[in-house]
Amino acid sequence: MHLYLATTNAGKLRDFAYALTPDCTFTLLPGLDTLPVPEETADTFEGNARLKAIAYSLTQPDLLVLADDSGLEVDALQGAPGVRSARFADDHDYQTSRPLPTDRRNNLCLLDALASTPESRRGARYRCTLALARNGEVLVIADGLVEGEILAVPRGSAGFGYDPLFLLPDEGLTMAELAPAARNQHSHRARALAALLDKINKPHPAE
Amino acid sequence: MHLYLATTNAGKLRDFAYALTPDCTFTLLPGLDTLPVPEETADTFEGNARLKAIAYSLTQPDLLVLADDSGLEVDALQGAPGVRSARFADDHDYQTSRPLPTDRRNNLCLLDALASTPESRRGARYRCTLALARNGEVLVIADGLVEGEILAVPRGSAGFGYDPLFLLPDEGLTMAELAPAARNQHSHRARALAALLDKINKPHPAE
Repeated sequence: MHLYLATTNAGKLRDFAYALTPDCTFTLLPGLDTLPVPEETADTFEGNARLKAIAYSLTQPDLLVLADDSGLEVDALQGAPGVRSARFADDHDYQTSRPLPTDRRNNLCLLDALASTPESRRGARYRCTLALARNGEVLVIADGLVEGEILAVPRGSAGFGYDPLFLLPDEGLTMAELAPAARNQHSHRARALAALLDKINKPHPAE
Repeated sequence: MHLYLATTNAGKLRDFAYALTPDCTFTLLPGLDTLPVPEETADTFEGNARLKAIAYSLTQPDLLVLADDSGLEVDALQGAPGVRSARFADDHDYQTSRPLPTDRRNNLCLLDALASTPESRRGARYRCTLALARNGEVLVIADGLVEGEILAVPRGSAGFGYDPLFLLPDEGLTMAELAPAARNQHSHRARALAALLDKINKPHPAE
């Protein structure tokens, strides 16, 4: 099975590259960069994954198009930043003394938002929803999540997004400190992809 | 044909994802993160690409393993940083007032090295050599290069490495400003991969 990814995020592509197998391969959706980017107007990961998969799969007949929506849900922030994870600092008009990469700004904005939250109340989860569509029709939806805690100080340089702040308590490591094989075992994206492939390969209940 | 990539660099993986086709797919070499990283002791891109492809292909019987070595050659620096591109700042013990990502440090170190070099003498090229190996034997070597100029001020946020400083004069854009399709047309890595696939698909001269 060959999937066409509807993302240009290098970190997501790396996650997918690790998780896929020779039986299930991918390349980027042809012409992805020339297509209008669908506005992520939904208020759930599933909603955004669906609208992206539908929009992109309508651009190329018969291709299996995989779209990802994912983010961080922090308990003390009532689930924020959630679907706004990539835009958290912008949403809060968070200013830094000099220009910083988006991930860094978002991380600092999150630390700021949790500055007065004690360690015992910093539970969070990473969530990923994948939608597989063809010709504008969603064929499969799958979720993956991983529970963690938000640190007060970033650790590690692998990964992307909020990974340096996201501690996996059982591992004692942040997502940005995990070796690739461990990341592929624990990450929300790897788990969502495993769930998706499981649904695809499982015989249909009616069969 | 299915290739196993021997790199965990997210930017390189993104470049490969764009350049490959449904007929030629890839996943990461299984267990890549648990394998010893071969020391890049050669003084040419080809030498390093060969030694990586050989070492990694010996870990998994019969797999087609693709290794990449690439970097920037600056005329005014007699071809430096070359094979040391990823380690340029470290090699020069280049210090910054606060910790910065490796790419940023390397970029600043390069600007420093070229501070007194006039615009007319800032020619450079990006070069990539790919080696495809199986069972410790190199099957194909291919090169790709792209000519450019080193700017005095970085521009653009796509890409990685020295991309924000690498101007493509004909495009009037840096590698970090290129849209993915243009990057896939101009980048040294895309060109090397195209050359590699061309060599593989071309009938053998003796046939």
